[in-house]
Amino acid sequence: MAGAEIERLIQALSRLPGLGPRSGRRAALALIKKRGQLLTPLLDSLADVERTVQVCPACGNFDTVSPCAICQDIRRDTTLICVVADVADLWAFERSGAMRGRYHVLGGVLSAIDGVGPDDLRVGALIERARQDKVREIILALPATVDGQTTAHYIADRLAGEGLTISGLAQGVPVGGEIDHLDDGTIFAALKARRPV
Amino acid sequence: MAGAEIERLIQALSRLPGLGPRSGRRAALALIKKRGQLLTPLLDSLADVERTVQVCPACGNFDTVSPCAICQDIRRDTTLICVVADVADLWAFERSGAMRGRYHVLGGVLSAIDGVGPDDLRVGALIERARQDKVREIILALPATVDGQTTAHYIADRLAGEGLTISGLAQGVPVGGEIDHLDDGTIFAALKARRPV
Repeated sequence: MAGAEIERLIQALSRLPGLGPRSGRRAALALIKKRGQLLTPLLDSLADVERTVQVCPACGNFDTVSPCAICQDIRRDTTLICVVADVADLWAFERSGAMRGRYHVLGGVLSAIDGVGPDDLRVGALIERARQDKVREIILALPATVDGQTTAHYIADRLAGEGLTISGLAQGVPVGGEIDHLDDGTIFAALKARRPV
Repeated sequence: MAGAEIERLIQALSRLPGLGPRSGRRAALALIKKRGQLLTPLLDSLADVERTVQVCPACGNFDTVSPCAICQDIRRDTTLICVVADVADLWAFERSGAMRGRYHVLGGVLSAIDGVGPDDLRVGALIERARQDKVREIILALPATVDGQTTAHYIADRLAGEGLTISGLAQGVPVGGEIDHLDDGTIFAALKARRPV
């Protein structure tokens, strides 16, 4: 219809979350029309990200430095780890400014339906980290879903006997809600009122 | 928060139509996670489009060849031109398969509010083309909005005395609707039942 290159761009955009074939077309057209304003900045930033962004070997965050800037930040409390399912949740905590420790990204939650078992998550690395860094407290900031809470209990069991405090987020997280979608105030309240599991 | 490179990617994505800050973040995260599936194809296709896509000097379409594939297609009726406001509308006609002539993209419609005057649209080029190509009929496929119909009347006035048929799309275009959003069947019916202005 309009050149294989444009068709491929539409397809690549349509696969992004929140976009479909129609919005992919609109986005492609906007990119072609506003080359200097939209296309070139997106192209440059994608190339930068592809070249520089890597997974932090310590916590699982994405960053251009390794270990990530959060793991390298000496002002952070290294004895406090906040366990999250996804990097999106880590970003939500960072936006709220409520977390003064470090993070550990599991890479998902246990799920019988999706076939996610303990070996698919970074649980072993968490236990190792807890021992090596002499961690005092682990906050399980996992989704308030059945799978999320199952995962929290599984991790709490695995960490039992390590001599550290295991806490969960306080009430305030909406039931069935995703941490990524919480407002900063709710994140702050839930983090402040965290309670032992 | 997560490296300046990631922030810039989020911003570049957030500026696309249909995306905002939150969906831009989700898209950025998906791109980083699925590098091979999402990021690299998008990066490659953006680079291809930036390198190869240009505006057709004849009709205003976007394509990798110049003149565009439609203008070069010898099976097309060169004496029939379909005038559209935007390349998105041209794409909609091509998807329907109902148009066997060529196109002329105005690049918008006259608008007092947006300060779009006749000199901002490719009207002069249309009249030149009509003369040079011995065009028999011009179909004004402009939006069924006040500005779109004002533009259609302005072009019809400018083309008066050129000895060609000027037609508009038949009833079937929803009042206030955008051509880009029509289904193929409606486009087909409206094009088939076109009537003189």
